[in-house]
Amino acid sequence: MTTIRNPSFASDIAASFARQGALSLIGAELEEIAPGKCTVRLPITKKVRQHHGFVHGGFVATIADVAGGYAAMSLFDSEKEVLTVEYKINFLAPADGVALIARAHVVRNGRTLTVTQAEVAAEQEDGSERPCALVQQTSMAG
Amino acid sequence: MTTIRNPSFASDIAASFARQGALSLIGAELEEIAPGKCTVRLPITKKVRQHHGFVHGGFVATIADVAGGYAAMSLFDSEKEVLTVEYKINFLAPADGVALIARAHVVRNGRTLTVTQAEVAAEQEDGSERPCALVQQTSMAG
Amino acid sequence: MTTIRNPSFASDIAASFARQGALSLIGAELEEIAPGKCTVRLPITKKVRQHHGFVHGGFVATIADVAGGYAAMSLFDSEKEVLTVEYKINFLAPADGVALIARAHVVRNGRTLTVTQAEVAAEQEDGSERPCALVQQTSMAG
Amino acid sequence: MTTIRNPSFASDIAASFARQGALSLIGAELEEIAPGKCTVRLPITKKVRQHHGFVHGGFVATIADVAGGYAAMSLFDSEKEVLTVEYKINFLAPADGVALIARAHVVRNGRTLTVTQAEVAAEQEDGSERPCALVQQTSMAG
Repeated sequence: MTTIRNPSFASDIAASFARQGALSLIGAELEEIAPGKCTVRLPITKKVRQHHGFVHGGFVATIADVAGGYAAMSLFDSEKEVLTVEYKINFLAPADGVALIARAHVVRNGRTLTVTQAEVAAEQEDGSERPCALVQQTSMAG
Repeated sequence: MTTIRNPSFASDIAASFARQGALSLIGAELEEIAPGKCTVRLPITKKVRQHHGFVHGGFVATIADVAGGYAAMSLFDSEKEVLTVEYKINFLAPADGVALIARAHVVRNGRTLTVTQAEVAAEQEDGSERPCALVQQTSMAG
Repeated sequence: MTTIRNPSFASDIAASFARQGALSLIGAELEEIAPGKCTVRLPITKKVRQHHGFVHGGFVATIADVAGGYAAMSLFDSEKEVLTVEYKINFLAPADGVALIARAHVVRNGRTLTVTQAEVAAEQEDGSERPCALVQQTSMAG
Repeated sequence: MTTIRNPSFASDIAASFARQGALSLIGAELEEIAPGKCTVRLPITKKVRQHHGFVHGGFVATIADVAGGYAAMSLFDSEKEVLTVEYKINFLAPADGVALIARAHVVRNGRTLTVTQAEVAAEQEDGSERPCALVQQTSMAG
């Protein structure tokens, strides 16, 4: 079902992630990459926390978008980067706690387009999680 | 059609914008606020440019989301902040040039929910613009 | 987690479904209603099949929208009908077979807004199913 | 900007529309087709009106989807049909009156994907119109 066409997808994605200045600016980390799956973590440090203590929705969307894109890319042929075509995000609750965790998986791996779904959860100090966003995304190889 | 219920909406929104650490982190600027309209500008500096020269889609979405939210807030009662319920973004072209400009306007100003639309354009060195994203958003007073 | 505020939600939803002329026009059936969940079935008869044999995407979206709305309504107070605020649909594969089945569940049951997710599958002659659409929806009590 | 690659796009689209049983079932009519633009009309007859007098949201979405798809197809090469990849719809007001009119235009005509926007208005007895839905759609040639 999830055929791996690029045996070095994990290292390619790690390298791609590391080149993204936007992600280091906000402090996002690639937590896990597997065939058709990707998890991105955003520690809630001072720079991404707003005056009211929540992470800006733009950064919530950013890590969900990135996790979805790399989940898609894990099933691409080698040497292809991922382009986000579009996505839709619902914000479910304010994003507070110690870190945000975006978990994405491939729903449909098409010839031209890949559809992914991502959930962003807010990890609390006691380790529990609260859902804070839901994303449905389309991406393509570019 | 666009009744102004908060006479100090412009200064309230400027103050709200200034409190958003996320926006100063990426360097976004509030360019214009009018009843039912908002423009946010993101100069394409080194910190938001990727290795290939484009701005990360997460930041494109962030300024569109913010412009839409403040366009909605300009029509709210005073002392109400804006919450993004959800949005959908289509990426039309890579975001390069000297600055990104997100222009949002209110499509429907309901009792509970406000629907906005935003276009993000990439300003080139010669002053011309290229469309780079289209956003449809729902927000509410919170 | 899924508090039932309307003890007669199942019969209320069945009655609401029966009043929807649009659904009888296309032949949709309420297959199952449970707290926070709803399944709608569309037999693929001649009237919803196109010349190429697939069901029109508009009807795929219709049953997903309806399933999501009633999943939300199952958790409302009594005597409240459901209004769809917005949704987003990705079409995953052509909709053919003997019937379409839209299964929706509540992702977040808020005070004002309810977020649901729905999957539409195409049931084949041998009973197997193929995913054909994915929907993320916001609704409210009206 | 809107290069016409299929000189017989108008008659091809009219023929494609006529083959769609789903559209004749609900009574939708192709009102206008032009390069990058399409208008679809749905007379509000008894069969699409609900018990409360409004048109079902599924049919509102259907005509917007169709108008967007044919707006895209007007710019395709000949002999290519249009496939809806995904769309997002916001419902702005209940759909009542004498007819619904979905007007779509192409926002971006890409090599693989076409992005369209559609507005659905409800025409009243006195000829005035009320906005009732806003749609952002992605389609491709198939």
